[in-house]
Amino acid sequence: MQKQIKLINRPAATPTKSDFKLVEAPIGEPSKGELLTRTVYISVDPYLRGRMNEGKSYIPPFELNGIISSGVIGQVVESKSDQFTKGDLVLGSLGWQEYSIANENEVQTIDPNLAPASTYLSVLGMTGLTAYFGFLDIGKPKEGETVVVSGAAGAVGSIVGQIAKIKGCHVVGIAGSDEKVNYLTDELGFDAAINYKTQEVGEALKEACPNGIDVYFENVGGKISDAIFPLLNKFARIPVCGAISSYNNEEPDLGPRVQVHLIKTSSLMQGFTVGNYSSRFEEGAKELARWLGEGKLKYEETITEGFDHTIDAFLDLFKGANLGKALVKVGDIEK
Amino acid sequence: MQKQIKLINRPAATPTKSDFKLVEAPIGEPSKGELLTRTVYISVDPYLRGRMNEGKSYIPPFELNGIISSGVIGQVVESKSDQFTKGDLVLGSLGWQEYSIANENEVQTIDPNLAPASTYLSVLGMTGLTAYFGFLDIGKPKEGETVVVSGAAGAVGSIVGQIAKIKGCHVVGIAGSDEKVNYLTDELGFDAAINYKTQEVGEALKEACPNGIDVYFENVGGKISDAIFPLLNKFARIPVCGAISSYNNEEPDLGPRVQVHLIKTSSLMQGFTVGNYSSRFEEGAKELARWLGEGKLKYEETITEGFDHTIDAFLDLFKGANLGKALVKVGDIEK
Repeated sequence: MQKQIKLINRPAATPTKSDFKLVEAPIGEPSKGELLTRTVYISVDPYLRGRMNEGKSYIPPFELNGIISSGVIGQVVESKSDQFTKGDLVLGSLGWQEYSIANENEVQTIDPNLAPASTYLSVLGMTGLTAYFGFLDIGKPKEGETVVVSGAAGAVGSIVGQIAKIKGCHVVGIAGSDEKVNYLTDELGFDAAINYKTQEVGEALKEACPNGIDVYFENVGGKISDAIFPLLNKFARIPVCGAISSYNNEEPDLGPRVQVHLIKTSSLMQGFTVGNYSSRFEEGAKELARWLGEGKLKYEETITEGFDHTIDAFLDLFKGANLGKALVKVGDIEK
Repeated sequence: MQKQIKLINRPAATPTKSDFKLVEAPIGEPSKGELLTRTVYISVDPYLRGRMNEGKSYIPPFELNGIISSGVIGQVVESKSDQFTKGDLVLGSLGWQEYSIANENEVQTIDPNLAPASTYLSVLGMTGLTAYFGFLDIGKPKEGETVVVSGAAGAVGSIVGQIAKIKGCHVVGIAGSDEKVNYLTDELGFDAAINYKTQEVGEALKEACPNGIDVYFENVGGKISDAIFPLLNKFARIPVCGAISSYNNEEPDLGPRVQVHLIKTSSLMQGFTVGNYSSRFEEGAKELARWLGEGKLKYEETITEGFDHTIDAFLDLFKGANLGKALVKVGDIEK
């Protein structure tokens, strides 16, 4: 038998433990073309909150009483596929469970000798690619421009800020603790960082961005981003990656309408999801791996140990508890 | 002596007559390289409201106690320039006054034999170019897509909708009276039109846009555009041209934040002003003139007679009184 996590309630507001249920189920047997994998790492991400609602979005909602799924790294226990061997490490969108039966087409092998296995869920995985494509393709940063990143100490934000530094920008991060702010400036080389819990964001931004804002990478929405709009330069770009402050709202999330600011500055605001760039993943992964190898890209992972704490790790995202990528380590990699 | 209109108060909310003053002043004498022109048509436009505020925008604010200016067509009374002759019709950004002294570099001649003089301020002028570039360059309509236009019976909106029909789109207009709604469907060939004063816009849009919305051309902002966001299709485009509902607000204009909608649909929202496209005006004007000549583009002008009514014509814009382009006819063209 193994443990699994099911969604048993669609959360109306901030999810709580009672929306989930830890259940036991048989491990199952792979058929031809399938693998049995043992879960090593589970990725917990803010976007999963959207999938817990009913109604269409860019990916279908989780089924009620179904198993939650996300990016998972597993190790092959038994292979009924020619393409995989016992012991292989694989990456795929798999269930929150200790063992998965995966079709050979829904997973890919990863090489833990090139980079630590967990990085395939963080800096080299969807997280890094989200930062890479959203920032470069929509943000179109130019050397010397001012880039502001919210959720800057989070998984995506911390990579966006570092890519902005690589591109020669003046980079300002917004985060929710002094520890995070120090991490951004001292470890990641941000030019400035703002603690939105203790500072007046509008004033702090004015000081940190004397030349206005050319790119705002949006991870949070809400009041923090409201403070950005009056400081936009002409032809500013706003890749809209996330709006974590809104995900748990029961009521419509009200704020100053943005139209007048966009007109005044001829600015662009564009939502995206990493899936839009799937045809270019190889390009992005290669560039990220190169920067990582050259020491230009640092990453942090907040790893929660033990499958039983997966729900806690997910709920912690909405408390701003994580630095960098949030992962759950379910088991060790066996040699 | 001649009459002029000065801005004597920066309006806090909706402008009123007391914000302006009709004064008398000498007509003046042109120097070398200058012309004396007699005003024929004055363009009154919603964007002028923004210039009545203090503070930077894409064009500088009007000076307090200075003469208002906008697009004007004048007839040359006296020329001290080799490039112009008495009787020529010229177009430029000139003062709200009966006579102007214009430098030869700030005006261009127009040919009233190709199209009526007034069209150089409407369908063939900035208004038409605003519709042309904003809709085609940002909106990127594809045949069969659904296009929604707000302020649809106004100067820009009515042209946007017709270009959308030329491009083979399903076109839905939003306007503020049954007369306007009928004009859009009966005269301009819109597929459907909604009266936002008598209909529930969200419900009416759902019915008029069974396949969702691919392009929303934003002229008004406020509650009307709030109703658009839940209906956006994947990769929708929103050229943000105007937000007339917000221009006169004293308090910040609050509405549902748009980030979550943009993320869910990977949609793009981009502010613009026609000046961004100045290097391509010739291309746009040529295409608009061609469509006009082919009878594919109709236009309406709401013409107020008499210089003394210029302020009224401007204030009427915020009451939704105009159908098509709002102009003031100050004098006749002399043969």
